[in-house]
Amino acid sequence: MTTFDSLWSGILDVGQDRNTRGYRRYAWSDADLTLREWFGGCAAERGMTAEEDRNGNLWAWWLPEGWTGEPHDAFVTGSHLDSVPDGGAFDGPLGVVSGFAAVDLVRQRGVEPAVPVAVVAFSDEEGARFGVACVGSQLSTGALDADRARSLRDIDGITLAEAMTSAGRDPRHLGVDETLTDRVGVYVELHVEQGRALDLVDRPLAVASAIWPHGRWEFTFDGQANHAGTTRMADRRDPMLAFASAVQTARACAVEHDAVATFGKVLASPNGTNAIPSRVRAWLDARAADEPTLSRLVGKIRAEAEKHAAEGGLALEVETESVTPIVQFPPGPRARLLRTLQHLGDLPVLPTQAGHDAGILSARVPTAMLFVRNPTGISHSPEEYAEPGDCVQGAQALADVMADWTTA
Amino acid sequence: MTTFDSLWSGILDVGQDRNTRGYRRYAWSDADLTLREWFGGCAAERGMTAEEDRNGNLWAWWLPEGWTGEPHDAFVTGSHLDSVPDGGAFDGPLGVVSGFAAVDLVRQRGVEPAVPVAVVAFSDEEGARFGVACVGSQLSTGALDADRARSLRDIDGITLAEAMTSAGRDPRHLGVDETLTDRVGVYVELHVEQGRALDLVDRPLAVASAIWPHGRWEFTFDGQANHAGTTRMADRRDPMLAFASAVQTARACAVEHDAVATFGKVLASPNGTNAIPSRVRAWLDARAADEPTLSRLVGKIRAEAEKHAAEGGLALEVETESVTPIVQFPPGPRARLLRTLQHLGDLPVLPTQAGHDAGILSARVPTAMLFVRNPTGISHSPEEYAEPGDCVQGAQALADVMADWTTA
Repeated sequence: MTTFDSLWSGILDVGQDRNTRGYRRYAWSDADLTLREWFGGCAAERGMTAEEDRNGNLWAWWLPEGWTGEPHDAFVTGSHLDSVPDGGAFDGPLGVVSGFAAVDLVRQRGVEPAVPVAVVAFSDEEGARFGVACVGSQLSTGALDADRARSLRDIDGITLAEAMTSAGRDPRHLGVDETLTDRVGVYVELHVEQGRALDLVDRPLAVASAIWPHGRWEFTFDGQANHAGTTRMADRRDPMLAFASAVQTARACAVEHDAVATFGKVLASPNGTNAIPSRVRAWLDARAADEPTLSRLVGKIRAEAEKHAAEGGLALEVETESVTPIVQFPPGPRARLLRTLQHLGDLPVLPTQAGHDAGILSARVPTAMLFVRNPTGISHSPEEYAEPGDCVQGAQALADVMADWTTA
Repeated sequence: MTTFDSLWSGILDVGQDRNTRGYRRYAWSDADLTLREWFGGCAAERGMTAEEDRNGNLWAWWLPEGWTGEPHDAFVTGSHLDSVPDGGAFDGPLGVVSGFAAVDLVRQRGVEPAVPVAVVAFSDEEGARFGVACVGSQLSTGALDADRARSLRDIDGITLAEAMTSAGRDPRHLGVDETLTDRVGVYVELHVEQGRALDLVDRPLAVASAIWPHGRWEFTFDGQANHAGTTRMADRRDPMLAFASAVQTARACAVEHDAVATFGKVLASPNGTNAIPSRVRAWLDARAADEPTLSRLVGKIRAEAEKHAAEGGLALEVETESVTPIVQFPPGPRARLLRTLQHLGDLPVLPTQAGHDAGILSARVPTAMLFVRNPTGISHSPEEYAEPGDCVQGAQALADVMADWTTA
């Protein structure tokens, strides 16, 4: 078994649902804690020093011979270990596993790094539990306020602070990581591609150009609960109708703006077959190639929803949960990756519609991303897949980059 | 405090949610068990013999002096104690409370009944937990198969059999109540009106003519889970879109057929903000003035949903959970009620769009219904209301009917 395979198989069953075969690795859940232990074990096996920072992000350090004091200007690679509900095996873990595998490959080649190397697993990237994505990296860069983070609630009303306390962590420590810019010389995140661009051009790897601006908005439609049998259609104030219109508006507007917009999450109250709902809460995820387009897109979806709500005698409240501006990955690190990986032919350079910790970190430190082909383009689903051969090529390419960066 | 008030206040806080102020009195839940104890207490206070039949229906018997052997040809009144999610205080309990209050009033008048009197609370009328309405009365009349009932599952996968066992009942006993036709001479159910018909004509009470045919259908739209950011709109198989179309079709078809149709309950999987759902399950409640209209209405909603599903690359399965034919209440008991209550003026005679145990029982025994004015027409909601004065008039009218029926 290769080092990649052995790392990969170590977490294949953690947090996997027996029925759906999808992963449910939510922040600070039992599955998340098991994955954190696994990360510590991987570090220990390699003689790397593991630490969990104030925001729950995990770091495994490989310091150069004779290094004293704090690490600085490190080559950092990794991704995240948490998942969306019923997510796939690759989104996140592939980057962490490839990070450790790259350390092994670099060592096998006899490379002695001149600067520190770290493998990192950022906490709560998907935001599946508390509704805000990239919590760990956003806290560290200061993009997310610590008080707001502590008071985020999951569907059961449990705050992030409570969940961390239950997991034996101290949420009072959450906040900006002042060591970040000193420590991180570059952050290179390897990630499974989440579209089909590489499949369409038949290439196993790519380098990222940019991340589309994207955000999440909670729509709350308030109507009037009533009996589904005895209330005349004309007398109803049924929030399900305005929600249905919003779903269709979102699709039409996304197509019109060459963008994407999705209502993937909905909660009706009281959610009874013979009751007109009093309230429907629904979450819009929208992304576009640039910020003015995203803003126009969401503005139109919202305006249409307000019109439909008013027509239906409903109240509508729209809350912005998060908006992430466009990320242009810096040209320097990207050019260096492309040069180092020249032996693989000119790698495609692609934008991505998915948010990543590398996008968050790029506000503070140099960053770059490598994508591994996804033959179906399916992601955030149990069917998410990457070929083993492509994954191994990804780890080797990451090792090439690590060796180049740490010895130049 | 009148006997009505004291009965009413005895259950006001049982199963009430602190936030919504609505009731969550689901079959075989703790709230339901508390209400069953309360029923036993009401019977005991009145020297009535309480029993729970094989299907969980509660009976409180007042037998004539010197009566020996089994009761037969009884005057039975009552309703149910369970609720929809976040239901109101009146739908169900008003009939049970009025039944006990009527017994007190009849006794105060010194009436000695010649036939047995019973107050009944039928089990699981709303079907909020296991998806099938009128479980107790349907089992007793043979309209619901005992094996099917036992295997009904709630949202947590718990079967009705398991829920009954947990509550200390033996679900093997479920089945047709062979004593029903002998025991019940007439069943008169008093119920809060669930529309605004009485309010519109400014009358406190009415007698029922018929129950609209109605049913519940589960629609399951199957698509493909995928990443909400990276999946092009053109590549999606998003079941939320077809569901949204079905919501709008249901409304348009209901208006067109002078009927009602509602999608009040929806469950998306995995229900993540940044994931296109793999599946959306939604429940249609539809009712119409006659069976051919109902059948046309549901057929059209279904056909349109199938069309939208096919256009979206989705699979659609529609399962009929229950269909209840039209109930015409028999003219004999209705005429007798109207005659007995002549002193209140000619009572309005109204159809209802809501299902009731009286409708189920009418397949086997003579039945009639009394409605108490609902000034807003709101029902299945915490805002459901009836004026105290109207409730007391209802209990007095029920006492008039009870006295007439048991002494003639």
